[in-house]
Amino acid sequence: MKYCSACGNEVVYRIPPGDSRPRFLCESCETVHYQNPRVVTGCLVTWEDRVLLCRRNIEPRRGYWTLPAGFLENGETAEAGAIRETWEEAQARVELDDLYTLFSLPHISQIYMFFRGRLLAPEYAAGAESEAVELFREEDIPWGELAFPVVRETLEHFFADRIDRRFRIRSSNIIVDPTRRR
Amino acid sequence: MKYCSACGNEVVYRIPPGDSRPRFLCESCETVHYQNPRVVTGCLVTWEDRVLLCRRNIEPRRGYWTLPAGFLENGETAEAGAIRETWEEAQARVELDDLYTLFSLPHISQIYMFFRGRLLAPEYAAGAESEAVELFREEDIPWGELAFPVVRETLEHFFADRIDRRFRIRSSNIIVDPTRRR
Repeated sequence: MKYCSACGNEVVYRIPPGDSRPRFLCESCETVHYQNPRVVTGCLVTWEDRVLLCRRNIEPRRGYWTLPAGFLENGETAEAGAIRETWEEAQARVELDDLYTLFSLPHISQIYMFFRGRLLAPEYAAGAESEAVELFREEDIPWGELAFPVVRETLEHFFADRIDRRFRIRSSNIIVDPTRRR
Repeated sequence: MKYCSACGNEVVYRIPPGDSRPRFLCESCETVHYQNPRVVTGCLVTWEDRVLLCRRNIEPRRGYWTLPAGFLENGETAEAGAIRETWEEAQARVELDDLYTLFSLPHISQIYMFFRGRLLAPEYAAGAESEAVELFREEDIPWGELAFPVVRETLEHFFADRIDRRFRIRSSNIIVDPTRRR
């Protein structure tokens, strides 16, 4: 951020009066430009004993498999966002059950949340951001080709919980040491 | 938003190519300025059979009672934000248990989340954004003077769950009809 989005003058980066951390702020119009984490919402979708995965057609992690998910939009509930993203990425219509996993990813300032859901019919297709969409049985999950740790952890919880049909909501953190990132 | 924060030129508000909703975008440097919901994280803090509430010293809802909570910061986990806000608003140190409630508030584009936590010692004081901080037994909760629906719902769930000591994580939506807002 270089310029004030309210008045167009250059911003500075420093701690505003009464605050404890640096912000982009405009000394002309006194606007403080807060920047906050974004929410990614998605869905672990099942049909009978299979789980729906999308092969990414976009970076990052193009070609790897993911659960349908994307940025929550203004004016949208987390559930509505999960349903929308499942439609956009997998052209699939779902009925949601409950929240299932919540992750903090502080190194990229994101909160991820996945709901469990069921396909209304075994109908799906690759949306614009996917190159393939498929239903996988547990033994066929491409564990070595999953796009993100949040996807792997959500699938691991699901198959563990499915044994006794008790799906426990879990919140956890994905901590990445920035000195060890590729 | 009137000006591009990257180059300082005026932005327009329209649907970018390949997108489905209008965004602020800069036709000079081609930056799309996405705007997304913000996350508020907080804590339902207990000491023995009492719950910690803060009387707000800031708008909105100045003078009403709330659970300590505030905007999640970049680079922060949801849990760390809840602990920080509890310190800032109630000068209280807590140990967190699990995520407890999650709310979507689409009319103000916010996601609220509350964790359960316990005071490490019965020590607390009003922080800068509070005019008072107190521990309340269930029968003393000022139900008619609570700041927000998310506070009331979280407290109602808590006292209901406390009967059998099973604290179920819940996600729900607060839907406000804009034509009926005061």
